[in-house]
Amino acid sequence: MKNNIFPFPLDTSFLDKAIQNAGVDLNIISIRELTRLVDELSLHHGIDFFRFEFGIPGLKAERIGPEEEIRVLTNDEMLPSTYPPFDGIPRLKKAAALFVKKFLNIEVFPENCIPTIGAMQGGFISQAIAGRRREGYDTILYLDPGFPVNKLQTKFLGLKAESVDLYDYRGTKLLNRLDQIFSSRKIGGLLWSSPNNPTWTCLKEKELEGIGNLLTEYDVIGIEDSAYLGMDFRVNYGIPGEPPFQPTVSRYTDNYFIIISSSKIFSYAGQRVALTVISPGLMDRRYPNLKRYYNTDILGRAFIHGGIYPTTAGVPQTPQHALAALFEAACNGKYDFLKKACKYGERARRAKEIFLSHGFNLLYDDDFGEPIADGFYFTIFRGKMTGGELLYQMLLFGIAGIPLRITGTVREGVRICVSLLNENQFDELKKRVSALDEFLG
Amino acid sequence: MKNNIFPFPLDTSFLDKAIQNAGVDLNIISIRELTRLVDELSLHHGIDFFRFEFGIPGLKAERIGPEEEIRVLTNDEMLPSTYPPFDGIPRLKKAAALFVKKFLNIEVFPENCIPTIGAMQGGFISQAIAGRRREGYDTILYLDPGFPVNKLQTKFLGLKAESVDLYDYRGTKLLNRLDQIFSSRKIGGLLWSSPNNPTWTCLKEKELEGIGNLLTEYDVIGIEDSAYLGMDFRVNYGIPGEPPFQPTVSRYTDNYFIIISSSKIFSYAGQRVALTVISPGLMDRRYPNLKRYYNTDILGRAFIHGGIYPTTAGVPQTPQHALAALFEAACNGKYDFLKKACKYGERARRAKEIFLSHGFNLLYDDDFGEPIADGFYFTIFRGKMTGGELLYQMLLFGIAGIPLRITGTVREGVRICVSLLNENQFDELKKRVSALDEFLG
Repeated sequence: MKNNIFPFPLDTSFLDKAIQNAGVDLNIISIRELTRLVDELSLHHGIDFFRFEFGIPGLKAERIGPEEEIRVLTNDEMLPSTYPPFDGIPRLKKAAALFVKKFLNIEVFPENCIPTIGAMQGGFISQAIAGRRREGYDTILYLDPGFPVNKLQTKFLGLKAESVDLYDYRGTKLLNRLDQIFSSRKIGGLLWSSPNNPTWTCLKEKELEGIGNLLTEYDVIGIEDSAYLGMDFRVNYGIPGEPPFQPTVSRYTDNYFIIISSSKIFSYAGQRVALTVISPGLMDRRYPNLKRYYNTDILGRAFIHGGIYPTTAGVPQTPQHALAALFEAACNGKYDFLKKACKYGERARRAKEIFLSHGFNLLYDDDFGEPIADGFYFTIFRGKMTGGELLYQMLLFGIAGIPLRITGTVREGVRICVSLLNENQFDELKKRVSALDEFLG
Repeated sequence: MKNNIFPFPLDTSFLDKAIQNAGVDLNIISIRELTRLVDELSLHHGIDFFRFEFGIPGLKAERIGPEEEIRVLTNDEMLPSTYPPFDGIPRLKKAAALFVKKFLNIEVFPENCIPTIGAMQGGFISQAIAGRRREGYDTILYLDPGFPVNKLQTKFLGLKAESVDLYDYRGTKLLNRLDQIFSSRKIGGLLWSSPNNPTWTCLKEKELEGIGNLLTEYDVIGIEDSAYLGMDFRVNYGIPGEPPFQPTVSRYTDNYFIIISSSKIFSYAGQRVALTVISPGLMDRRYPNLKRYYNTDILGRAFIHGGIYPTTAGVPQTPQHALAALFEAACNGKYDFLKKACKYGERARRAKEIFLSHGFNLLYDDDFGEPIADGFYFTIFRGKMTGGELLYQMLLFGIAGIPLRITGTVREGVRICVSLLNENQFDELKKRVSALDEFLG
């Protein structure tokens, strides 16, 4: 932070004008619109903001990935002249199956491991399959709050979305609610992330067991977004092949896709490479309705040849090698990726402390009886302010974050992402939050 | 080709069994199924086939691309830790606008140049926009024959497809036919490639002018697939900034997307990086129906934030630098990409000669009054045989190709792709084609 004098609160007139010019409502502003607004404020006032709105990695990529890509690109025999296989390069498929064994303790085959262009493509095609398998079962049910772009995917695909809020439903209550909604016979897929974006709640093994049973009973596909795999830092999930293992629904049902992103766990967002694991029990299953969209009724083929092929014709070659090398290094213990990612937990702990000691509260504070863990995100609220009202005041003190309404909850608050916080910024954060606290009274 | 004795025709019993086991019909076999069948035959008989079914680059990538990626990956300040901008890195957008100016002689801005994951993603999103802008206008019209996977995209998107065969319609007749179909008010987009896959017909400037006028009149979006940009080798389109320029519809209408692939012109298929140019006149146009799918009614935003974002969240970073470097080198004259690609024309000329002097004919032989050019593909037929029947006989002589029915024509024949043909294979090709000719009598 470069400013010497303390210029907060900022002048409201410029903010008001900027909001008006952009035609946005802070309660439902999208991340992208917010980013533009914060850029504008930052530039106008000559102030660095705390960019808590970005859900992006704040750590540097390990050299393992780039080195591997360089190795391949240097080799004239491996020039990327021709198309990658649509279902991924064999080396990555093999490394992925091993990674899943070592860190989730489930048995899948290389053929079940499908590289995708980021978790984004994995989620997109997973929904396109889950929501189109059976006529009428065209709704994706979300365990909310969640990542807003997943809902944009649902919309792109012309599917419908429904929501269950984890604030109201956990444990048996959650299972009963799912049972009730599934029995409406409209749900094709159930999508969640655990740890959860934006609240950092983590589903318990018992909940996943119940969810798995229901997925099987109603033939709904669970889409388990493991973007933050192993990042519940209350537990060390980081020793390959040793318990405890990351909780996963895949232990309890054949009806799952698991989406593993390299963006957060490996800080490799820039090369857009991820993995979808298709349950071995789902791979060869036939659903005649798929033929309407993918020229095949076999689920695994529909995913690969009806999904990956017509959207991107596969995943770039050298990032696949990078991801393979990262998986390999994680499996053989040479790269303790969770030890590195632990920094996010430490940043969250310290940032929470600052907010909580200055009149803010955690919104999603309860993780099924335990305090919420420290991780990538947390959610705050203040009194009866809406998310947009709170964000407005925060912006006057050089702090951004995303209002929760866009994540699918009716509760009012703001998501804070700590990934970009640096050691030398906590004092400044404390000063601003404390001044904001005084200002709000 | 490793075999010393001449083992053709192969035994029909194995081929019959393989066809039966795969449950395929050679008249409508997909490229992927055919590839699997040919692999099986090749392995069983210990014979190398002429893999004319693959439409893949047969040249090595220039070192320009890999070197650029290595440069970026080596630089610790440019590590691909975080997300690329959804609309592409500024350097590539700038280089793309220059490339389009130098080789198509049209004026677009960097903001109109959107990198995609291969031309595949460009075509996918282009259709998703063109076919969803206006209620009811949900049909993509194809100038056929064409690339079968474009139709798979139409199907994925839940859109409808119609077809006009270039065999029957060229020049004024084509324009009249388009006028007639457009006036049905169902057509959202018109998709073609020129040079055309699979026939290598090339639309004339006059035809494109007429098409452009009709696109404007009926507000249909032209999706111009320039996968083989400049590869009509009868003309030298390869001098940057100098006429003649590749014919393009963009001179005659604001209603266009141009899709430029790096796979064929730069032999860079493996890194899946391409470009879609959105017409500057289309970028800010509003269509309320887009809101149903993309949270915005502005076409350019719908493409980027409603299309690129929820499918892949952008294009991998380092391949974008590679493509930028290739565009830059092409523009400043350091890399004469069409001179290199000329080899395909030479291969086509010699391969055609062999087929034509042995009882085969070109199916699409007439390019609006001129002989068809020599390029990546050509189409053959023989007597009254269907494409599947001809393919069956070709396979017995170790030659593959794709039956034309899957490309959207009712005419019977086989597409030959010459990209993988090497200098030392022409003698063997001649032997096999000549033996096949004798065998068919």
